Amino acid sequence: MHLDDLDTPSLVIDLDALERNIGEMAAVARAAGVRLRPHTKTHKSPEIARTQVEAGATGITVAKLGEAEVMADAGLDDLLIAFPLVGERKLARLRELLDRADVRVSLDAVDVAEGVGHVGKDLGRDVPVLVEVDTGLHRMGREAGDPSARLALDIAGVPGVDVIGLLTHAGHAYRARDADELGAIATREALDLVDTAERCEREGLLIRVISVGSTPTARVAATVDGVTEIRPGTYVFNDVQQLRLGIATEQTCAARVLTTVVARPTAERFLIDAGTKSFSSDGDDGPPFPGRGVVAGRPDLVLDFMNEEHGVGHLVGDAVLRIGERLEVIPLHVCSTVNLFDVAFGLRDRVVEREIAIAARGKVQ
Amino acid sequence: MHLDDLDTPSLVIDLDALERNIGEMAAVARAAGVRLRPHTKTHKSPEIARTQVEAGATGITVAKLGEAEVMADAGLDDLLIAFPLVGERKLARLRELLDRADVRVSLDAVDVAEGVGHVGKDLGRDVPVLVEVDTGLHRMGREAGDPSARLALDIAGVPGVDVIGLLTHAGHAYRARDADELGAIATREALDLVDTAERCEREGLLIRVISVGSTPTARVAATVDGVTEIRPGTYVFNDVQQLRLGIATEQTCAARVLTTVVARPTAERFLIDAGTKSFSSDGDDGPPFPGRGVVAGRPDLVLDFMNEEHGVGHLVGDAVLRIGERLEVIPLHVCSTVNLFDVAFGLRDRVVEREIAIAARGKVQ
Repeated sequence: MHLDDLDTPSLVIDLDALERNIGEMAAVARAAGVRLRPHTKTHKSPEIARTQVEAGATGITVAKLGEAEVMADAGLDDLLIAFPLVGERKLARLRELLDRADVRVSLDAVDVAEGVGHVGKDLGRDVPVLVEVDTGLHRMGREAGDPSARLALDIAGVPGVDVIGLLTHAGHAYRARDADELGAIATREALDLVDTAERCEREGLLIRVISVGSTPTARVAATVDGVTEIRPGTYVFNDVQQLRLGIATEQTCAARVLTTVVARPTAERFLIDAGTKSFSSDGDDGPPFPGRGVVAGRPDLVLDFMNEEHGVGHLVGDAVLRIGERLEVIPLHVCSTVNLFDVAFGLRDRVVEREIAIAARGKVQ
Repeated sequence: MHLDDLDTPSLVIDLDALERNIGEMAAVARAAGVRLRPHTKTHKSPEIARTQVEAGATGITVAKLGEAEVMADAGLDDLLIAFPLVGERKLARLRELLDRADVRVSLDAVDVAEGVGHVGKDLGRDVPVLVEVDTGLHRMGREAGDPSARLALDIAGVPGVDVIGLLTHAGHAYRARDADELGAIATREALDLVDTAERCEREGLLIRVISVGSTPTARVAATVDGVTEIRPGTYVFNDVQQLRLGIATEQTCAARVLTTVVARPTAERFLIDAGTKSFSSDGDDGPPFPGRGVVAGRPDLVLDFMNEEHGVGHLVGDAVLRIGERLEVIPLHVCSTVNLFDVAFGLRDRVVEREIAIAARGKVQ
């Protein structure tokens, strides 16, 4: 089937761009001598995860236990669940998952480690744990340095868990105003973790994994001495957030939403058949990428606002646009966009090569 | 199963509140002598749509053709698709749907009407059409009054369609600052349509349906002479947007996301296991309902920001909160929240009475 035969809105993936993005990040990790454990929350697709592993990833990261279960069902057997597992139901599911996959979890509290430790004791082997450290996002974790080292030592004393390393997520990198600030955040992310690890080791706790690196920070953080692993996610598809940070181009934005122009109520205004229930409301607009998404190849079209099913934009200058024309829109935040679709269409030269199941969509538990 | 036995995050519905909300809006319509055609994009559930019809709704509204197909599959056979259907695939599906349900569509262009008219000619009977009018949202439609009347007359000349009425959506009511402004928007929405209808009728086009009324405007708009139908959607569940407008209370907010506290990294900060992939990023926060959702019964907890799976908040005053505690969060925008779940749990006195399938979730085509 040709792209032109797909109904709209549809999520479409340029497979050549996807494969290039996957290969390029694998090369970054190889060149830096670190492991690549990509975050699969971006695509939620076991098929794409397998492609990442075949390209050199040594395992994958997931955001939720439910995502881990889907990936394990598909044969992906080296999983980091980068989320604290709390409550009896979650721990029972972790117990089951440990029977069929290598699973490590991140957390930032002794209470949470004790729950995971019960699972380890029941299983007869320690559950590998990464202690999450706050390097500036102010979400999970204690401050880097002594506060986090003390926490790691406390968690290492919990029976049934094995503290194998430290982990951080520098999500505040998305607020960087230029490449210098981005580089500084990436370097600090890595150095903070290396410093915390040294403090742990002085107290006798060997830190074997130092795990950093979102898509904006991975290329820099990977090169810092001591880092052992990067966990970028968005790089497989990229999006307007990455364009804004200067680390992607329209050509490396592999995921788009194919839409149809459904109304032209005034000379300037147009509407497409996709709104926040196809794109989400995530992400910032404004110069140099104004609008709620970038219309690929059409700088003369700006999406001003979205309601649930309507995308409302205006024409710039002498733009011409008819009802029935189809537009490909690069999302502001691709992770949230992909999560709204059950399936993506993988394109090669504008022909649908295959359907890609977003099998872990909605697995928020 | 008890509420306490559900894993988190889960979407939970207070069935008593839901049924009261449905009954109250049906009473509003009866008292005003107008038809109620609720917008089912809020719940996307054939089961709840049936409850609305049993309470007196004379049909339902859907946002997309895919939602209409799901509702027709479940036996709901009087459907308004409040979205322009453009393209051969959509028209072929409309043709099929017309064989098994009464379907009317809204649109705002002769081009679009011509496509629908081809379906009518093929079917051998005119497709009922509502012409969408702009009453201030500046999304679909031409200005009320002569511009829209002229458009309606032009569309009435298209073979295969039957212009039965006019429709508008005053979505800008969500920006009203107080009850007076809200009332003024609702009144204008209705009067604009009545005025446009009179202009059509002076030119010989009988307008049989005047369809107005979102949840914020329905109660006022229903009382304006000439209005024949209201289409509120959100009233079944309500959300923080309705709290902000003063048309709901915490008790009438029937849908919540059940979450677990998974981290307490500092004395003030807490994290729950639900973020934008459970709530969406829709809606405004700020006084008097600060935060990315209202924690039911806990004014001492404020949700400051959300990432995809993390909700990050702070404790106010002497608040106490432990890892493992469960919180019910009222979403800012319930329609987008529900759309992220495959199933909701219907509760009676905190016991799960039944699961409710969100069967039309993701049906954006």
